[in-house]
Amino acid sequence: MDNQNTLRRLKTAEGHLRGVIRMVEEDAYCIDVIRQIQAIEAALNKVSAQILENHLNSCVITAVQGNDKKERQRVLKEITEVFEMSNKV
Amino acid sequence: MDNQNTLRRLKTAEGHLRGVIRMVEEDAYCIDVIRQIQAIEAALNKVSAQILENHLNSCVITAVQGNDKKERQRVLKEITEVFEMSNKV
Amino acid sequence: MDNQNTLRRLKTAEGHLRGVIRMVEEDAYCIDVIRQIQAIEAALNKVSAQILENHLNSCVITAVQGNDKKERQRVLKEITEVFEMSNKV
Amino acid sequence: MDNQNTLRRLKTAEGHLRGVIRMVEEDAYCIDVIRQIQAIEAALNKVSAQILENHLNSCVITAVQGNDKKERQRVLKEITEVFEMSNKV
Repeated sequence: MDNQNTLRRLKTAEGHLRGVIRMVEEDAYCIDVIRQIQAIEAALNKVSAQILENHLNSCVITAVQGNDKKERQRVLKEITEVFEMSNKV
Repeated sequence: MDNQNTLRRLKTAEGHLRGVIRMVEEDAYCIDVIRQIQAIEAALNKVSAQILENHLNSCVITAVQGNDKKERQRVLKEITEVFEMSNKV
Repeated sequence: MDNQNTLRRLKTAEGHLRGVIRMVEEDAYCIDVIRQIQAIEAALNKVSAQILENHLNSCVITAVQGNDKKERQRVLKEITEVFEMSNKV
Repeated sequence: MDNQNTLRRLKTAEGHLRGVIRMVEEDAYCIDVIRQIQAIEAALNKVSAQILENHLNSCVITAVQGNDKKERQRVLKEITEVFEMSNKV
């Protein structure tokens, strides 16, 4: 995994989330809070896509080129599962 | 692609969508229309996941096991792209 | 409801969906099919938002300005429900 | 806003996000990281819905029952906007 880039993005999201907590503590306008939460979710979506890209170019290539059919099926099944879940969150 | 199953689901969604059009023509309650549209979207998400699963178990395996590195990169890049888009629709 | 505009958009989505069914019948490339399905979902999201906007400016105003507290609560509850569902589809 | 409940949920999400950062630092399996990020997003969706519900039952009622037509339109427009965005994140 390209850990450094992923970590940087996740820490930015964490800082953003702490900012939202402060907004709520200071009774910010509801809609502004919702918009900031949506911005965090958009950022988290980007991190997920980046992690998936790294995963496809490492573990998935290894598993698909390997001889273990069961492992290959497992790895491909996981891709479908996170894709399905991405439609729900 | 497991065409028959995919086709059946898509045709069901089409029938559902025609039903929504009738609802609007007959001035149905707005929230009921929105709920039916959301149900169609949930069904379309399932079709997409099914198509992706078939794709992973055919084209993606072929490309990743093949010798054309560029083709492999193209195929894996597409997975990330539809994943990213799935977060947005 | 601004029925004419809503109907036009829904019928466009229906035509788009019929196109996707044809693509599957003609064995189109899986990723192209998924992308078209995602485009239909984006269009349906826009219709839903439009219907909600009309609903807010008619039924919701009437209910919130009316004297029936139970009806007001029901109408506001529905907004939260379709919002929650919109996060899931 | 029901600040206490909202704050509790946001702080839980923040703790969850810190856990994900640790996972990445410790080179956890990519798919497990993606799944945890998706769980955080599902939790954030619930907070947003809760904040919207509170907003509808306070600011929106006040604005819609008030005499300022422009303010009413502004408040209702915002609901449509966060609904539209919720379809995209």
